[in-house]
Amino acid sequence: MGRTSDAREKILGAAQSLIELRGYSALGVAEICKAAGVPKGSFYYFFESKEALALAVIDEQWAGQKSAWARALGSDDEPLIRLRRLFEDTEASQLAGQQSCGTVSGCMFGNLTLEMSNQTESVRERLQAIFEEQVGMVESVISEAHARHDIAVADSREAARAVVAQLEGQVLFAKLYNNTQQLGPLWSNCLALLGASMPQEPVAEI
Amino acid sequence: MGRTSDAREKILGAAQSLIELRGYSALGVAEICKAAGVPKGSFYYFFESKEALALAVIDEQWAGQKSAWARALGSDDEPLIRLRRLFEDTEASQLAGQQSCGTVSGCMFGNLTLEMSNQTESVRERLQAIFEEQVGMVESVISEAHARHDIAVADSREAARAVVAQLEGQVLFAKLYNNTQQLGPLWSNCLALLGASMPQEPVAEI
Repeated sequence: MGRTSDAREKILGAAQSLIELRGYSALGVAEICKAAGVPKGSFYYFFESKEALALAVIDEQWAGQKSAWARALGSDDEPLIRLRRLFEDTEASQLAGQQSCGTVSGCMFGNLTLEMSNQTESVRERLQAIFEEQVGMVESVISEAHARHDIAVADSREAARAVVAQLEGQVLFAKLYNNTQQLGPLWSNCLALLGASMPQEPVAEI
Repeated sequence: MGRTSDAREKILGAAQSLIELRGYSALGVAEICKAAGVPKGSFYYFFESKEALALAVIDEQWAGQKSAWARALGSDDEPLIRLRRLFEDTEASQLAGQQSCGTVSGCMFGNLTLEMSNQTESVRERLQAIFEEQVGMVESVISEAHARHDIAVADSREAARAVVAQLEGQVLFAKLYNNTQQLGPLWSNCLALLGASMPQEPVAEI
């Protein structure tokens, strides 16, 4: 125990779980250390402040999520198939989270944007950079789909931002209703945003 | 001062401002009373708990916002014009908030959904009811537009949910970047979601 890299990992893991469950503001360093099973003195050996810990948790979370996004979006499949996989993966990962802790925790970056961005400039900047990366990854697939004439968008970057905004909004609903089925319409909404044909029931005549 | 209805209003007003600025979890009753200029004893005369205060703040906020939504969506104009007014009003009110307190505060209901819904069941239920009302108000306009063949949607309720999700997602970005111009594309995104023609530049040929 103590000042080992193991303690740092324990603190990070405990902080990640607690932030997912209860947000950042309500947490204290003592509580995080207790959950991590690490003496409080160790905390300040590894992290300058609670804010520094928040940044480390955000980085760790994005490293994992970015790999998952790259896998979903980077395969040899057609661009729209890859985009659909991103939504399926999102739904699956929110469902896995719900099964392990009882509630849909939503998107940590969205959660922290709404909770922290107006209070902590360093966190705001880090979250901006992450969302820019997300939009960039989606934009790249949208540009490919556009080049193939699968979709019709005026501005790939703006379209990608709309898709990520739709994702954040629907994940918010999934958290609100504690129900990942809220994410079901993401794919058809995305197709509509991108001006692709809807692979669903024909529009009912009135 | 003290146990007058004036004190209740002061507590509500102070709590609303503080929640907009810093969220709910980080606030204490003592701090709210200090900002309201009301003795702490008064608090528990009017509110059973901090949670009861949160519910009262949410109700007050929704009462105001619901009137604004009803004005925007209930005029004699064409349905899509009314929907556009809702987005213009949202952008104007976020801008006014930014000018008065320096930061874009976002949507209180979205903020509290991400911060509180997994911790406080009464707040979750209240926020669900508010979002259902919002979706219902937008659905009603979408149904009118559909009946006029202005748009093509398979399911008006689902389309309304997608529009509100898009609104929440873009308001999140406006807060993240502290820039209400993030809300500019809302209208064209909404038209795309509803299968209406895009009143913009033609799609560039590649």
